[in-house]
Amino acid sequence: MHNMSTKTSEPVPQARPRRGRRPAGQVRAEVLAAAADLLFTSGLVAVTFDRVAAASGASRTTIYKWWPTPGALAAESYLSSVEHALGFSDTGDIRADLRAQLRAFANLMLNTPAGRVIREMIGAAQIDIALRDALTTLYSHPRRDDAIRALARAQGRGQLRHDAPLDVLVDQLWGACYHRMLLLNEPVDETLIDRMIDNALYGCADRPHNR
Amino acid sequence: MHNMSTKTSEPVPQARPRRGRRPAGQVRAEVLAAAADLLFTSGLVAVTFDRVAAASGASRTTIYKWWPTPGALAAESYLSSVEHALGFSDTGDIRADLRAQLRAFANLMLNTPAGRVIREMIGAAQIDIALRDALTTLYSHPRRDDAIRALARAQGRGQLRHDAPLDVLVDQLWGACYHRMLLLNEPVDETLIDRMIDNALYGCADRPHNR
Repeated sequence: MHNMSTKTSEPVPQARPRRGRRPAGQVRAEVLAAAADLLFTSGLVAVTFDRVAAASGASRTTIYKWWPTPGALAAESYLSSVEHALGFSDTGDIRADLRAQLRAFANLMLNTPAGRVIREMIGAAQIDIALRDALTTLYSHPRRDDAIRALARAQGRGQLRHDAPLDVLVDQLWGACYHRMLLLNEPVDETLIDRMIDNALYGCADRPHNR
Repeated sequence: MHNMSTKTSEPVPQARPRRGRRPAGQVRAEVLAAAADLLFTSGLVAVTFDRVAAASGASRTTIYKWWPTPGALAAESYLSSVEHALGFSDTGDIRADLRAQLRAFANLMLNTPAGRVIREMIGAAQIDIALRDALTTLYSHPRRDDAIRALARAQGRGQLRHDAPLDVLVDQLWGACYHRMLLLNEPVDETLIDRMIDNALYGCADRPHNR
C-alpha cells in the first residue's frame, strides 16, 4: 500500500507466492497495494500482471479475473491510493468543504508523486483507448460522482441554487486545476483554489443573472 | 496547409527541394503547412525534420534554425492550423462572443481531426518534457493570452466586474471543456457550452456574494 493511503502496510517484501488461503477481499487489497507501489515508484510501464503477481503473491489468473488490462489495475490502484486524501468533509458549509478538499487535491498534485503519476496516466490514456476507458470508469467518473454527492448535499441545504449545474461545477473546479497542470504547466496553489471556488460560486459578471 | 486554415494552399505535392530563393516568411509558412499536413494526416510521430523537409522543400538546417525540436514544430503548426477557426469576434456582448468562440472550439474538437490531434499532443506532452514546454509556449499560453484580451475588452465595457479573475475564467471555460474530453471522455456540445458560460458568469451560489 502506498504511503498516501491511511492504511498502514508495507509493500510485500518477498516475491515468492504465499500459498495459504486468504480471503478474496484481502488478496484484492494486496494486489492493489502492490500495483500502486509499482506505479508510484516506477511509473505506469512497471504495472504489468507479471510484476504485480510477483509482488503480491497472487496468481496472474486471479489478477486477470478482476482486471482485464494492466491499465485497469493501475487506474484502480491509483484511486485506492489517493481516495483517503481526497474525501469530502461535511461541515455544513460548502465553501469551506470545497476549500478543504481542493486544497488537499492541490497539495497531493504538487507535493507528492501523485501529480506525476496521474499526469502520466492521463497522458497515456489519450493514445491508449483501453487505458482511457479504464481511467474514465475507475477513476474520473467515480471521483466526479463523489464530488457531485457533496455538492448535492449543499444544494439540499440551499447553499447552491436548485438548478445549479453540478456537473459543470466539477469541470470548473477540478477540471480547471487539471487545465493548469496539463495544458498550462503551472502550479495550482491555495490562492488560485480560492479564486476558482469564488468564481464558480459567484460568477464574474458585473451583476446577478436575471433569473 | 491543412484545410482548417482559411488560407488556400495544398500540401507540396513533390518531394524534391525547390532551389529558388523564397522569402523567409514564405518558407516558414510552407514548413508549417507541411508539418500540419503530416500531423493531421499521420499523427505526431510523423512530424520529423526529415519528412517535413522533404514535404516542404526547406532544408533540415533551415527548419532546425526556427524550431529546436519536431515537437515545437508540431505545436506551432497545430496553432497555425486552428487559429483562424478559433478567433474571437467582438460584437460588444461578451456572452455572445464567448458562445460563438466556444461553440467553434467544441465543433473543432468534435467534428474535425483537431480533437484527436490536440488530444494526442497533450497526452504525449505529459511524458515528453520538451514537447510539454513547446506546447505550453507555442499553443496553450498564446491561446490563453488571446482569450484574456477578449475578456479584458468586456471588462473595459463593464460587462465583467473590475476584479474578475480572467485567468480563472479561461480555466473554467476552455479548461472545463478539456476536462470533459481528456478525463471524462465525454463530448462537449452547445448545451454544455451555454451552461458553462452561464455558470462562469453568474455562479451557482443561492445568492450573490457579499462584495
